[in-house]
Amino acid sequence: MSKAIVLLSGGLDSATVAAIAQQRHSQVLALSFRYGQRHSTELLAAQRLTARMNLAEHRVIDIDLGQLGGSSLTDHTLDVPETRQDGIPNTYVPARNTVFLSYALAYAEVSGAAAIYLGINALDYSGYPDCRPEFVEAYQNLVNVATRATVTGQHIQIEAPLLNLTKAAIIQQGTELGVDYGMTVSCYQADDAGVACGVCDSCRLRHEGFVQAGVEDPTPYRQGS
Amino acid sequence: MSKAIVLLSGGLDSATVAAIAQQRHSQVLALSFRYGQRHSTELLAAQRLTARMNLAEHRVIDIDLGQLGGSSLTDHTLDVPETRQDGIPNTYVPARNTVFLSYALAYAEVSGAAAIYLGINALDYSGYPDCRPEFVEAYQNLVNVATRATVTGQHIQIEAPLLNLTKAAIIQQGTELGVDYGMTVSCYQADDAGVACGVCDSCRLRHEGFVQAGVEDPTPYRQGS
Repeated sequence: MSKAIVLLSGGLDSATVAAIAQQRHSQVLALSFRYGQRHSTELLAAQRLTARMNLAEHRVIDIDLGQLGGSSLTDHTLDVPETRQDGIPNTYVPARNTVFLSYALAYAEVSGAAAIYLGINALDYSGYPDCRPEFVEAYQNLVNVATRATVTGQHIQIEAPLLNLTKAAIIQQGTELGVDYGMTVSCYQADDAGVACGVCDSCRLRHEGFVQAGVEDPTPYRQGS
Repeated sequence: MSKAIVLLSGGLDSATVAAIAQQRHSQVLALSFRYGQRHSTELLAAQRLTARMNLAEHRVIDIDLGQLGGSSLTDHTLDVPETRQDGIPNTYVPARNTVFLSYALAYAEVSGAAAIYLGINALDYSGYPDCRPEFVEAYQNLVNVATRATVTGQHIQIEAPLLNLTKAAIIQQGTELGVDYGMTVSCYQADDAGVACGVCDSCRLRHEGFVQAGVEDPTPYRQGS
Protein backbone atom coordinates (compact mmCIF):
# COMPACT_ATOMS: atom_id res chain seq x y z
CA MET A 1 0.00 0.00 0.00
CA SER A 2 2.95 2.30 -0.56
CA LYS A 3 3.09 5.66 -2.27
CA ALA A 4 5.42 6.60 -5.11
CA ILE A 5 6.47 9.89 -6.67
CA VAL A 6 6.76 9.97 -10.48
CA LEU A 7 8.62 12.68 -12.36
CA LEU A 8 6.03 13.28 -15.05
CA SER A 9 7.26 15.45 -17.90
CA GLY A 10 4.35 14.56 -20.14
CA GLY A 11 6.66 12.75 -22.53
CA LEU A 12 6.59 9.17 -23.72
CA ASP A 13 9.10 7.84 -21.21
CA SER A 14 7.60 9.40 -18.10
CA ALA A 15 4.09 8.24 -19.05
CA THR A 16 5.43 4.70 -19.33
CA VAL A 17 7.14 5.00 -15.96
CA ALA A 18 3.91 6.25 -14.37
CA ALA A 19 2.12 3.16 -15.68
CA ILE A 20 4.85 0.92 -14.24
CA ALA A 21 4.64 2.68 -10.86
CA GLN A 22 0.89 2.22 -10.81
CA GLN A 23 1.36 -1.52 -11.04
CA ARG A 24 3.62 -1.54 -7.99
CA HIS A 25 2.14 1.12 -5.68
CA SER A 26 -1.30 1.98 -4.36
CA GLN A 27 -0.86 5.73 -4.88
CA VAL A 28 1.17 7.51 -7.54
CA LEU A 29 1.87 11.22 -7.03
CA ALA A 30 3.02 13.10 -10.13
CA LEU A 31 5.56 15.91 -10.06
CA SER A 32 6.25 18.23 -13.00
CA PHE A 33 8.40 21.31 -13.45
CA ARG A 34 7.97 24.60 -15.24
CA TYR A 35 11.59 25.53 -15.84
CA GLY A 36 11.52 27.91 -18.77
CA GLN A 37 11.53 25.08 -21.27
CA ARG A 38 10.37 25.83 -24.80
CA HIS A 39 8.25 22.71 -24.87
CA SER A 40 5.81 23.79 -22.18
CA THR A 41 3.04 21.94 -24.00
CA GLU A 42 4.53 18.93 -22.20
CA LEU A 43 2.99 20.29 -19.01
CA LEU A 44 -0.46 20.26 -20.55
CA ALA A 45 0.19 16.68 -21.57
CA ALA A 46 1.21 15.87 -17.98
CA GLN A 47 -2.08 17.31 -16.73
CA ARG A 48 -4.09 15.27 -19.23
CA LEU A 49 -2.14 12.10 -18.37
CA THR A 50 -2.74 12.66 -14.64
CA ALA A 51 -6.48 12.74 -15.23
CA ARG A 52 -6.52 9.88 -17.73
CA MET A 53 -4.38 7.60 -15.54
CA ASN A 54 -6.15 8.56 -12.29
CA LEU A 55 -2.93 9.56 -10.56
CA ALA A 56 -3.49 10.59 -6.94
CA GLU A 57 -2.06 14.10 -7.23
CA HIS A 58 -0.16 16.33 -9.65
CA ARG A 59 2.10 19.12 -8.48
CA VAL A 60 3.83 21.53 -10.82
CA ILE A 61 6.81 23.35 -9.41
CA ASP A 62 8.18 26.54 -10.91
CA ILE A 63 11.94 26.47 -11.08
CA ASP A 64 14.42 28.99 -12.19
CA LEU A 65 16.92 27.05 -14.29
CA GLY A 66 16.46 29.48 -17.16
CA GLN A 67 17.93 32.22 -15.01
CA LEU A 68 21.20 30.29 -14.92
CA GLY A 69 21.24 29.78 -18.71
CA GLY A 70 23.51 27.43 -20.61
CA SER A 71 20.99 25.38 -22.59
CA SER A 72 19.04 25.85 -25.80
CA LEU A 73 16.02 24.42 -23.96
CA THR A 74 15.85 27.33 -21.54
CA ASP A 75 17.90 30.02 -23.28
CA HIS A 76 15.83 31.09 -26.25
CA THR A 77 18.77 32.82 -27.93
CA LEU A 78 20.30 29.41 -28.73
CA ASP A 79 18.99 27.25 -31.58
CA VAL A 80 17.73 23.74 -30.93
CA PRO A 81 19.87 21.51 -33.16
CA GLU A 82 18.02 19.53 -35.81
CA THR A 83 20.75 16.97 -36.34
CA ARG A 84 22.44 14.65 -33.88
CA GLN A 85 25.65 16.16 -32.57
CA ASP A 86 28.79 14.57 -31.24
CA GLY A 87 29.30 14.80 -27.51
CA ILE A 88 26.79 16.62 -25.35
CA PRO A 89 24.15 18.59 -27.28
CA ASN A 90 23.22 22.15 -26.40
CA THR A 91 19.80 20.91 -25.32
CA TYR A 92 21.57 19.68 -22.17
CA VAL A 93 20.26 21.65 -19.17
CA PRO A 94 22.99 21.80 -16.50
CA ALA A 95 22.17 19.61 -13.50
CA ARG A 96 18.54 19.27 -14.58
CA ASN A 97 17.90 15.76 -13.31
CA THR A 98 19.85 16.52 -10.15
CA VAL A 99 17.57 19.48 -9.45
CA PHE A 100 14.41 17.54 -10.37
CA LEU A 101 15.32 14.61 -8.13
CA SER A 102 16.08 16.96 -5.25
CA TYR A 103 12.55 18.34 -5.35
CA ALA A 104 11.20 14.81 -5.69
CA LEU A 105 13.17 13.86 -2.60
CA ALA A 106 11.61 16.70 -0.61
CA TYR A 107 8.17 15.64 -1.88
CA ALA A 108 8.84 12.00 -0.99
CA GLU A 109 9.89 12.94 2.54
CA VAL A 110 6.84 15.12 3.13
CA SER A 111 4.35 12.64 1.62
CA GLY A 112 5.94 9.51 3.08
CA ALA A 113 6.57 7.94 -0.32
CA ALA A 114 8.66 4.79 -0.61
CA ALA A 115 10.01 5.41 -4.09
CA ILE A 116 10.78 8.00 -6.75
CA TYR A 117 10.35 6.95 -10.38
CA LEU A 118 12.04 8.67 -13.29
CA GLY A 119 12.04 7.89 -16.98
CA ILE A 120 15.69 8.26 -17.93
CA ASN A 121 17.27 5.68 -20.19
CA ALA A 122 20.90 5.12 -20.96
CA LEU A 123 20.72 3.75 -24.48
CA ASP A 124 18.94 6.68 -26.08
CA TYR A 125 20.28 9.21 -23.65
CA SER A 126 21.63 11.68 -26.25
CA GLY A 127 24.84 12.28 -24.32
CA TYR A 128 23.32 13.72 -21.15
CA PRO A 129 25.58 12.79 -18.22
CA ASP A 130 22.66 12.72 -15.77
CA CYS A 131 20.90 9.92 -17.67
CA ARG A 132 23.43 7.20 -16.90
CA PRO A 133 23.31 4.26 -14.48
CA GLU A 134 26.20 5.78 -12.50
CA PHE A 135 24.08 8.86 -11.91
CA VAL A 136 21.15 6.86 -10.54
CA GLU A 137 23.43 4.84 -8.28
CA ALA A 138 25.15 7.95 -6.93
CA TYR A 139 21.80 9.63 -6.32
CA GLN A 140 20.56 6.60 -4.38
CA ASN A 141 23.66 6.74 -2.20
CA LEU A 142 22.95 10.42 -1.54
CA VAL A 143 19.31 9.75 -0.65
CA ASN A 144 20.39 7.12 1.84
CA VAL A 145 22.16 9.76 3.95
CA ALA A 146 20.36 12.99 3.01
CA THR A 147 16.98 12.62 4.64
CA ARG A 148 15.17 12.11 7.90
CA ALA A 149 14.89 8.51 6.78
CA THR A 150 18.15 7.91 8.60
CA VAL A 151 16.23 8.66 11.80
CA THR A 152 12.65 7.66 10.98
CA GLY A 153 13.47 4.54 8.99
CA GLN A 154 11.60 5.76 5.88
CA HIS A 155 13.56 4.31 2.97
CA ILE A 156 13.23 6.04 -0.39
CA GLN A 157 14.18 4.02 -3.45
CA ILE A 158 15.17 5.66 -6.74
CA GLU A 159 13.61 3.67 -9.57
CA ALA A 160 14.64 4.12 -13.19
CA PRO A 161 12.91 1.15 -14.82
CA LEU A 162 13.63 2.29 -18.39
CA LEU A 163 17.34 2.75 -17.81
CA ASN A 164 18.51 -0.08 -20.01
CA LEU A 165 15.59 -0.31 -22.42
CA THR A 166 15.57 0.81 -26.04
CA LYS A 167 12.88 3.26 -27.11
CA ALA A 168 11.19 0.37 -28.91
CA ALA A 169 11.15 -1.77 -25.76
CA ILE A 170 9.75 1.14 -23.76
CA ILE A 171 6.93 1.58 -26.27
CA GLN A 172 6.17 -2.13 -26.27
CA GLN A 173 6.00 -2.23 -22.47
CA GLY A 174 3.85 0.90 -22.25
CA THR A 175 1.51 -0.36 -24.94
CA GLU A 176 0.96 -3.54 -22.92
CA LEU A 177 0.16 -1.38 -19.88
CA GLY A 178 -2.36 0.64 -21.87
CA VAL A 179 -0.44 3.93 -22.09
CA ASP A 180 -2.11 6.29 -24.57
CA TYR A 181 0.96 7.65 -26.35
CA GLY A 182 -1.17 9.99 -28.42
CA MET A 183 -1.50 12.05 -25.22
CA THR A 184 2.26 12.38 -24.71
CA VAL A 185 4.60 15.04 -26.11
CA SER A 186 8.34 14.55 -26.63
CA CYS A 187 9.17 17.34 -29.10
CA TYR A 188 11.32 20.25 -27.99
CA GLN A 189 9.40 22.51 -30.36
CA ALA A 190 5.85 21.21 -30.17
CA ASP A 191 3.17 23.85 -30.69
CA ASP A 192 0.45 24.69 -28.19
CA ALA A 193 -1.82 22.02 -29.61
CA GLY A 194 0.87 19.41 -29.00
CA VAL A 195 1.83 19.00 -32.68
CA ALA A 196 5.48 17.94 -32.91
CA CYS A 197 8.07 19.41 -35.30
CA GLY A 198 9.06 16.03 -36.72
CA VAL A 199 12.70 16.94 -37.29
CA CYS A 200 14.41 17.40 -33.90
CA ASP A 201 16.43 14.75 -32.12
CA SER A 202 13.54 13.83 -29.83
CA CYS A 203 11.05 13.47 -32.69
CA ARG A 204 13.38 11.23 -34.66
CA LEU A 205 14.23 8.99 -31.71
CA ARG A 206 10.56 8.75 -30.82
CA HIS A 207 9.39 7.87 -34.32
CA GLU A 208 12.19 5.33 -34.83
CA GLY A 209 11.06 3.73 -31.58
CA PHE A 210 7.52 3.20 -32.84
CA VAL A 211 8.81 1.78 -36.13
CA GLN A 212 11.13 -0.62 -34.34
CA ALA A 213 8.43 -1.59 -31.82
CA GLY A 214 6.03 -2.41 -34.64
CA VAL A 215 3.48 -0.07 -33.06
CA GLU A 216 1.67 2.61 -35.09
CA ASP A 217 3.01 6.07 -34.21
CA PRO A 218 0.07 8.19 -32.98
CA THR A 219 2.14 11.39 -32.82
CA PRO A 220 0.94 14.39 -34.85
CA TYR A 221 3.97 15.76 -36.76
CA ARG A 222 4.23 18.99 -38.77
CA GLN A 223 6.83 17.51 -41.15
CA GLY A 224 9.34 14.67 -41.58
CA SER A 225 9.25 11.32 -39.75
CA MET B 1 42.48 32.21 -10.91
CA SER B 2 39.53 29.89 -10.33
CA LYS B 3 35.92 30.75 -9.60
CA ALA B 4 33.89 29.46 -6.68
CA ILE B 5 30.19 29.42 -5.87
CA VAL B 6 29.19 30.18 -2.27
CA LEU B 7 25.78 29.36 -0.83
CA LEU B 8 25.21 32.66 0.96
CA SER B 9 22.25 32.62 3.32
CA GLY B 10 23.26 35.84 4.99
CA GLY B 11 23.93 34.02 8.25
CA LEU B 12 27.08 33.84 10.31
CA ASP B 13 28.31 30.56 8.88
CA SER B 14 27.87 31.38 5.21
CA ALA B 15 29.55 34.78 5.64
CA THR B 16 32.54 33.01 7.15
CA VAL B 17 32.62 30.53 4.30
CA ALA B 18 32.51 33.36 1.75
CA ALA B 19 35.56 34.90 3.40
CA ILE B 20 37.39 31.56 3.28
CA ALA B 21 36.51 31.12 -0.41
CA GLN B 22 37.82 34.61 -1.17
CA GLN B 23 41.21 33.61 0.17
CA ARG B 24 41.38 30.63 -2.19
CA HIS B 25 39.69 31.85 -5.39
CA SER B 26 39.94 34.90 -7.60
CA GLN B 27 36.18 35.23 -8.04
CA VAL B 28 33.44 34.30 -5.58
CA LEU B 29 29.87 34.10 -6.92
CA ALA B 30 27.14 34.15 -4.28
CA LEU B 31 23.92 32.18 -4.52
CA SER B 32 20.92 32.70 -2.25
CA PHE B 33 17.41 31.29 -2.18
CA ARG B 34 14.00 32.72 -1.50
CA TYR B 35 12.16 29.59 -0.38
CA GLY B 36 9.27 30.84 1.68
CA GLN B 37 11.36 31.07 4.80
CA ARG B 38 10.16 33.27 7.64
CA HIS B 39 13.60 34.76 8.07
CA SER B 40 13.72 36.55 4.72
CA THR B 41 15.72 39.34 6.32
CA GLU B 42 18.61 36.94 5.79
CA LEU B 43 18.37 37.76 2.10
CA LEU B 44 18.84 41.45 2.77
CA ALA B 45 21.88 40.53 4.85
CA ALA B 46 23.20 38.46 1.94
CA GLN B 47 22.86 41.48 -0.35
CA ARG B 48 24.70 43.73 2.08
CA LEU B 49 27.44 41.13 2.58
CA THR B 50 27.87 40.77 -1.20
CA ALA B 51 28.51 44.50 -1.50
CA ARG B 52 30.68 44.75 1.61
CA MET B 53 32.85 41.76 0.65
CA ASN B 54 33.05 42.71 -3.04
CA LEU B 55 31.75 39.34 -4.21
CA ALA B 56 31.70 39.07 -8.01
CA GLU B 57 28.00 38.36 -8.37
CA HIS B 58 24.91 37.58 -6.30
CA ARG B 59 22.02 35.57 -7.65
CA VAL B 60 18.81 34.94 -5.72
CA ILE B 61 16.72 32.02 -6.87
CA ASP B 62 13.06 31.65 -6.02
CA ILE B 63 12.23 28.12 -5.03
CA ASP B 64 9.04 26.46 -4.13
CA LEU B 65 9.86 24.35 -1.07
CA GLY B 66 7.02 25.98 0.85
CA GLN B 67 4.56 24.44 -1.58
CA LEU B 68 5.67 20.99 -0.41
CA GLY B 69 5.31 21.89 3.28
CA GLY B 70 6.61 19.87 6.19
CA SER B 71 8.67 22.49 8.04
CA SER B 72 7.97 25.29 10.49
CA LEU B 73 10.40 27.44 8.50
CA THR B 74 8.22 27.41 5.40
CA ASP B 75 4.83 26.36 6.76
CA HIS B 76 3.61 29.32 8.78
CA THR B 77 0.94 27.27 10.52
CA LEU B 78 3.65 25.49 12.54
CA ASP B 79 5.39 27.13 15.50
CA VAL B 80 9.14 27.59 15.57
CA PRO B 81 10.28 25.81 18.74
CA GLU B 82 12.01 27.97 21.32
CA THR B 83 13.72 25.12 23.12
CA ARG B 84 16.09 22.49 21.81
CA GLN B 85 14.23 19.30 20.89
CA ASP B 86 15.34 15.72 20.79
CA GLY B 87 15.80 14.24 17.36
CA ILE B 88 15.10 16.33 14.28
CA PRO B 89 13.42 19.68 14.96
CA ASN B 90 10.42 20.89 12.98
CA THR B 91 12.60 23.64 11.54
CA TYR B 92 14.07 20.92 9.30
CA VAL B 93 13.14 21.65 5.68
CA PRO B 94 12.98 18.37 3.76
CA ALA B 95 15.91 17.98 1.36
CA ARG B 96 16.81 21.67 1.66
CA ASN B 97 20.57 21.34 1.28
CA THR B 98 20.10 18.75 -1.46
CA VAL B 99 17.96 21.22 -3.41
CA PHE B 100 20.33 24.14 -2.73
CA LEU B 101 23.39 22.21 -3.83
CA SER B 102 21.62 21.08 -6.99
CA TYR B 103 21.09 24.69 -8.05
CA ALA B 104 24.68 25.49 -7.08
CA LEU B 105 25.81 22.61 -9.28
CA ALA B 106 23.92 24.03 -12.26
CA TYR B 107 25.40 27.46 -11.54
CA ALA B 108 28.90 25.99 -11.25
CA GLU B 109 28.55 24.19 -14.57
CA VAL B 110 27.31 27.29 -16.38
CA SER B 111 29.89 29.64 -14.85
CA GLY B 112 32.83 27.22 -15.03
CA ALA B 113 33.42 27.29 -11.27
CA ALA B 114 35.86 24.87 -9.68
CA ALA B 115 34.20 24.63 -6.29
CA ILE B 116 30.98 25.04 -4.34
CA TYR B 117 31.26 26.27 -0.74
CA LEU B 118 28.62 25.73 1.88
CA GLY B 119 28.55 26.60 5.55
CA ILE B 120 27.17 23.47 7.14
CA ASN B 121 28.75 22.15 10.30
CA ALA B 122 28.29 18.82 11.97
CA LEU B 123 28.86 19.73 15.61
CA ASP B 124 26.12 22.33 15.91
CA TYR B 125 23.96 20.81 13.25
CA SER B 126 20.74 20.66 15.31
CA GLY B 127 19.87 17.18 14.08
CA TYR B 128 19.55 18.00 10.38
CA PRO B 129 20.56 14.90 8.41
CA ASP B 130 21.83 16.98 5.47
CA CYS B 131 24.46 18.72 7.61
CA ARG B 132 26.64 15.67 8.18
CA PRO B 133 29.99 14.65 6.69
CA GLU B 134 28.34 11.62 5.06
CA PHE B 135 26.04 13.97 3.21
CA VAL B 136 28.89 16.06 1.81
CA GLU B 137 30.78 12.95 0.75
CA ALA B 138 27.74 11.46 -0.98
CA TYR B 139 27.05 14.74 -2.74
CA GLN B 140 30.63 14.90 -4.01
CA ASN B 141 30.27 11.39 -5.42
CA LEU B 142 27.10 12.49 -7.18
CA VAL B 143 28.74 15.60 -8.64
CA ASN B 144 31.54 13.45 -10.03
CA VAL B 145 29.11 11.63 -12.31
CA ALA B 146 26.24 14.12 -12.70
CA THR B 147 27.72 16.83 -14.89
CA ARG B 148 29.32 17.56 -18.21
CA ALA B 149 32.55 17.57 -16.24
CA THR B 150 32.78 13.88 -17.04
CA VAL B 151 33.24 14.95 -20.68
CA THR B 152 34.82 18.40 -20.42
CA GLY B 153 37.16 17.66 -17.54
CA GLN B 154 35.73 20.47 -15.36
CA HIS B 155 36.01 19.17 -11.82
CA ILE B 156 33.69 20.67 -9.22
CA GLN B 157 34.72 20.27 -5.59
CA ILE B 158 32.22 20.50 -2.73
CA GLU B 159 33.84 22.42 0.12
CA ALA B 160 32.37 22.49 3.61
CA PRO B 161 35.24 24.10 5.56
CA LEU B 162 33.18 24.56 8.75
CA LEU B 163 32.03 20.96 8.89
CA ASN B 164 33.98 20.00 11.98
CA LEU B 165 34.30 23.39 13.65
CA THR B 166 32.45 24.58 16.73
CA LYS B 167 30.50 27.82 16.48
CA ALA B 168 33.24 29.44 18.57
CA ALA B 169 35.97 28.27 16.20
CA ILE B 170 33.96 29.54 13.22
CA ILE B 171 33.62 32.96 14.82
CA GLN B 172 37.32 33.09 15.66
CA GLN B 173 38.30 32.19 12.09
CA GLY B 174 35.87 34.68 10.55
CA THR B 175 36.98 37.42 12.89
CA GLU B 176 40.57 36.88 11.75
CA LEU B 177 39.37 37.16 8.15
CA GLY B 178 37.59 40.41 8.89
CA VAL B 179 34.00 39.21 8.64
CA ASP B 180 31.58 41.84 9.94
CA TYR B 181 29.21 39.63 11.93
CA GLY B 182 27.01 42.60 12.75
CA MET B 183 25.83 42.37 9.14
CA THR B 184 24.79 38.71 9.40
CA VAL B 185 21.43 37.32 10.51
CA SER B 186 20.93 33.85 11.96
CA CYS B 187 17.58 34.18 13.70
CA TYR B 188 14.56 32.32 12.35
CA GLN B 189 12.34 35.17 13.54
CA ALA B 190 14.42 38.27 12.92
CA ASP B 191 12.39 41.37 12.11
CA ASP B 192 12.75 43.39 8.93
CA ALA B 193 15.50 45.50 10.47
CA GLY B 194 17.52 42.36 11.19
CA VAL B 195 16.87 42.38 14.96
CA ALA B 196 17.01 38.81 16.28
CA CYS B 197 14.49 37.26 18.70
CA GLY B 198 17.17 36.17 21.16
CA VAL B 199 15.36 33.03 22.27
CA CYS B 200 15.26 30.56 19.36
CA ASP B 201 17.69 27.71 18.83
CA SER B 202 19.72 29.69 16.29
CA CYS B 203 20.03 32.74 18.52
CA ARG B 204 21.18 30.71 21.51
CA LEU B 205 23.76 28.73 19.52
CA ARG B 206 25.03 31.93 17.96
CA HIS B 207 25.34 33.85 21.20
CA GLU B 208 27.01 30.93 22.99
CA GLY B 209 29.50 30.84 20.12
CA PHE B 210 30.51 34.46 20.68
CA VAL B 211 30.84 33.89 24.42
CA GLN B 212 33.00 30.80 23.91
CA ALA B 213 35.08 32.53 21.23
CA GLY B 214 35.78 35.44 23.54
CA VAL B 215 34.47 37.82 20.87
CA GLU B 216 31.91 40.51 21.63
CA ASP B 217 28.51 39.57 20.16
CA PRO B 218 27.46 42.38 17.79
CA THR B 219 23.97 40.90 17.24
CA PRO B 220 20.97 43.08 18.04
CA TYR B 221 18.58 40.96 20.14
CA ARG B 222 15.00 41.76 21.20
CA GLN B 223 15.29 39.71 24.40
CA GLY B 224 17.32 36.98 26.10
CA SER B 225 20.95 36.10 25.30
